[in-house]
Formats: sequence, C-alpha cells, structure tokens
Amino acid sequence: MTRSLYILPLLPLLSPALCAQEAAGVVLVIHGGAGAIDRKKMTPALEQQYRADLEKALRAGHAILQRADGTSLDAVEAAIKVLEDSPLFNAGKGAVFNREGRNELNASIMDGKDRRAGAVAGVARIKNPISAARAVMDKSPHVFLIGAGAERFAAEQGLEMVSPLYFWTERRWQELLKAEERAKKKDVRDDSESLRYLGTVGAVALDRAGNLAAGTSTGGLTYVRAGRVGDSPIIGAGTYAENEACAVSCTGHGELFMRHIVAADIAARVKYRKDALGQATRAALDALPKEPGGAGGIIALDRQGNAVTAFSTNGMYRGTITRDGKISIAIYAE
Amino acid sequence: MTRSLYILPLLPLLSPALCAQEAAGVVLVIHGGAGAIDRKKMTPALEQQYRADLEKALRAGHAILQRADGTSLDAVEAAIKVLEDSPLFNAGKGAVFNREGRNELNASIMDGKDRRAGAVAGVARIKNPISAARAVMDKSPHVFLIGAGAERFAAEQGLEMVSPLYFWTERRWQELLKAEERAKKKDVRDDSESLRYLGTVGAVALDRAGNLAAGTSTGGLTYVRAGRVGDSPIIGAGTYAENEACAVSCTGHGELFMRHIVAADIAARVKYRKDALGQATRAALDALPKEPGGAGGIIALDRQGNAVTAFSTNGMYRGTITRDGKISIAIYAE
Repeated sequence: MTRSLYILPLLPLLSPALCAQEAAGVVLVIHGGAGAIDRKKMTPALEQQYRADLEKALRAGHAILQRADGTSLDAVEAAIKVLEDSPLFNAGKGAVFNREGRNELNASIMDGKDRRAGAVAGVARIKNPISAARAVMDKSPHVFLIGAGAERFAAEQGLEMVSPLYFWTERRWQELLKAEERAKKKDVRDDSESLRYLGTVGAVALDRAGNLAAGTSTGGLTYVRAGRVGDSPIIGAGTYAENEACAVSCTGHGELFMRHIVAADIAARVKYRKDALGQATRAALDALPKEPGGAGGIIALDRQGNAVTAFSTNGMYRGTITRDGKISIAIYAE
Repeated sequence: MTRSLYILPLLPLLSPALCAQEAAGVVLVIHGGAGAIDRKKMTPALEQQYRADLEKALRAGHAILQRADGTSLDAVEAAIKVLEDSPLFNAGKGAVFNREGRNELNASIMDGKDRRAGAVAGVARIKNPISAARAVMDKSPHVFLIGAGAERFAAEQGLEMVSPLYFWTERRWQELLKAEERAKKKDVRDDSESLRYLGTVGAVALDRAGNLAAGTSTGGLTYVRAGRVGDSPIIGAGTYAENEACAVSCTGHGELFMRHIVAADIAARVKYRKDALGQATRAALDALPKEPGGAGGIIALDRQGNAVTAFSTNGMYRGTITRDGKISIAIYAE
C-alpha cells in the first residue's frame, strides 16, 4: 500500500533527503511534526508512546468517518484534539515555551466543500485551539481571531478554557532553559538556532460525501520572540482544503511555508497544472530554500483517497488510515 | 493608456459590476480601498483631498523609482506611508475603531525578488504599520509578528511609536457610534453590517532592476470584534509578490480574500496557467462568492509594467504612475 517514491541523496549531513510516500484508499492522514528527530534520545518506550497517540488520533478520526453522516471536518478536529491533548506533540498540552516563558498557541481548520475557514493565533487559555479555529469558522463571520479577542470569543462559545499553567510541562520547560543558555552564550537576539526545533500537528480527511478538510495546530518555536506567528494558522500557508484540488497540512520552518504559501501552492499545481498530487507536493516542498536540517514536512489527500506524506527533515511523525481501518504509522524516512 | 476592459451589468443594485482597467508602462499602482463610495457625501472639495493624497503617494514612490538604485520595496513603503499618514484612508492615522473603541492595525509587505515577507497584526502603538512589516522582514528571521510582541519589536528597531490616541479621529469615532447604534437596534453580536465598510491601502511597484514588491495596510473594519484579522497582513491573501509572476495588493471583504488566497491565486494563474495578468486578476476576483456591495478590489503589476486595477464594488480609490511620471487617478467605475 505504501511505497517510497524517491530519495534524493543530496547534502546528506546538512540537508536530509526529500522523502515522499504515497498510499491509496486513505480517508485520514495525520502528522505530529517534522524535524531533527534524535534516534539516540528515542527509547523504544518513548517511540511506543508516540505510536500509541498517533494511532489513537487516527482511530478517533476514523470512528467519525465510518458514520454515514460523519464529516471530514469533525474527523480532522477529533484527530487533532487527541494530539493536542497528548504532552508529546508541540500543540495544545505539549506546546513549547516562547522567549518570555509563555505558551502561544496557533491553529487553523478549513472545509474543502466551500472553502470556509477558521483560525486563531496567540492564544494561551484555550485548551484545544483547533476547536477554537472551528468555532471561528462556524460561529463567527470571520476567519482569523488573535490574542485576547480570540480567547474571549472561545469562552463565549463555551469552549473549555484553562489557566496558562495547563500548558506547563517539565520537558518543554527544560528545552526552554537549554535554548536560553545557548542563546546567551552566543549573545544573539534572534538566533536562527531557535528556528531549528520543528513541530506541529495536523490532519487531512475525506468523508463519505466526498468532502475534504484540513487542520493544523502548533505551540510555535521554543524560545521564539513573543508574538511570532508561523504558518500553522495561515490559510494557504500551513493549512488548505478545496474539494476540487486537495487537503493539505504543513509542518516545519513556518517562515518558509508562509513566504511560499505552500499548502495553496500544492492545490494550485493540481488545479492549474493538472499535476498529480504526489508530484505537486514534492515540487512545492522541493521549491523551498534549502537549509540545514530540512525545511519541514507535508501531508496531502485528494478526493480519490490518494495520500501523500513528504518531508525534507530526517523524520516526521505521521500516520494514515484507510476506509477499512488499516493503519500505517512511521517516524523516520523508511 | 488606460482602457476599460469590460463591465458586467449584473445585479446593478446589489452587486456592482466587475470593473477592470489595464495600463502599460506603469511602475507604481496604489489603492486607497474599495467599497460603497457614496457619491452624495463626496463633495468636490473632499474628492480633491482624496486625489491630492493619492497623487502625493504616487509621487513619493515614483521619486524613489526614478533613482538608479531605488527599489520597489522602498517605493511601496513610501507610498503606503503617505496613505497611512493621511486621515482619509482606513490605515494608520485614519484607521477605523473596533467594537471595543480601539484601533487595531495590520500591514504586510513582500519582496518579489526572493519572496521575503514581513507582516504585523493587532498593533496600536506603531505610527506606520507598513514600516513595522518591513522591519520584521529585514531585521528579524520571522514573517509575522502580532500584538504587544510586534510593538516591542518595532520599538526596539527604532520605529516611531505613538499613543493609541494618535489614531483617534472624529470622523471614525462617529462611524463607530453609528455602527454601534445600528447593531444595538438589531441585537446581533456579529452582524454582517459591520463587514460592509471596506477600506485599506496598498501599493505594488516595479523598479529599474526589474524587481516587484507589494504592500498592504489597514485599520480593519468599523465595530468589528476585537482581535479579528483580515487579509491585509496575510501573505498570499491580501499581499503577494513574485518576480516571475506579479505583485498584488487586495482590499475588500477580507474573509473572502483569505479563504480564496486571492493574491497568490492570481500569481498561480499567471505561473501555472500562463494567463495574462488582466485575465488572471479578473478571474480571481470573479471567483469570489457574490455579495451585496461587491467583494472588493485588486491592484496588480508585472515585470513588463502591465498594471491592472479591478473591483466588484461601486468604486475604488486608485492611481497609477508610469516611468516617465504620467499619473492616472480614479475613484469610481469610469
């Protein structure tokens, strides 16, 4: 079902090969971030936890898609909520800390049927930012709400609100302290080192009615400047869905994905150039400026159930599930 | 030099005709917002003020483009600063008030040469948001900064900071009070009425080196929910520049432009479908959902100096200037 398409052995140490895989008959694809995944730090027990949470997210989405009236939007939201609630991923509970020791969460969701969309950025009191993005789409005339205004809207809508302390985890705090130490030694204010940590969660789904949906949620970058927003809440950059093209969720060096409007670019290549989805996804990823560690990863799905996972980092937490429940989960380039 | 391409006489009262004009030999195009411009309220004296400020903006950008080393980025920033400093336009000084009686300003800028970009949203203390967007692009590794974090960055960079009171104008305050009164009568919390006011400023430019740039700046929507961000600071939605395609700035019902990623869609049609710029611009605007009053307007420019202005509202403040300084300014569909 899953086959490696090609691996370019370019700059093996600096820029990992672009790895792309395709699968058919898929109804849900998820990712838990692409980046420099350190195999030495990955114990078998920890890897098992990652796999278990990815599987839980896939099954949560799949349960919805199995229903006669289950929508791809609901499946995307349900899958991402599982990943947001896990402390393992850089979204929701496991969000990283910014330079001021705070969590700033961003998320977006899009309906491929009518290109409605919702997004939030710079929020710290909403337990599940993906549900806030959904509420912006469904319950307001807007697409994008930020900061305190977004939090007040979420509270008005009855979403679960939490103290910012909910997002505090020992692991992320230690990552922040280490990043601060590195930054102080080099005495740089906006060091690119802070851009090296890549992580975000996302999902793309296809329902029985033939509608696509996409969603992305992130905690941003460790030790990043307060107020920085990446591609995750940007419709067209980190998230995009259009039935006539595809559904896409991105993860990686957000600034590159924003400048190249990657998610919408894949859809444009499919619509206007008539590229196959795998070709469009690889081309869009390959068009990003090359950088040490790789730019990031992409998941994409079309109405025929063709799924693509592609990344230029050394790994991407990812999984697919087919209509009949067959699960495939992977972490490294395999 | 300027010729009307076509005017569709569809739904003359509800949805104004799509009006598109093209011109050649242009180095700078600006807009001061598209929307329902009330001819009855437009006195000859007021119209003259609008035309004078549009001309001032065109000349500020043109002066830069006349220099051997003048860049399109500098021209875009200079032209937009003139419009931000004018109380007439909904950007900078003339920004409208949100539902909480505050101004929240958004802006973005993009370099067509290397697709670098910068943007700010939800700021209230930066005199010229377009210069803050430029600083994010030039002086940080980021693309998008929001809220207090963006303001602190701008202050660190030495940009001119102001009290939020700087953005208070009697005209906008009266508009807010009227909008609040209308909203209270109807007892709606997110009334679409608040979406009817359309206004934003933008510029696209071409320099002697053949580089394109685009920028957009806005004060948002009168009486809108606090924290709402429209298309103006979103790279790909309200602003986009890529030398190999075109430079674009949009104005109008921001949510539609975000969902349809309009600025990048025009570039994609040029790149992937090989559409002429005028055709691509009209098609992207025409693809937006139809609504009363029209969706908004677009300015676009390519490396050959072909300029397009298109809008589906009853008017758009707009102007072009050619390499040799010939100015064309218009407000209504003419």
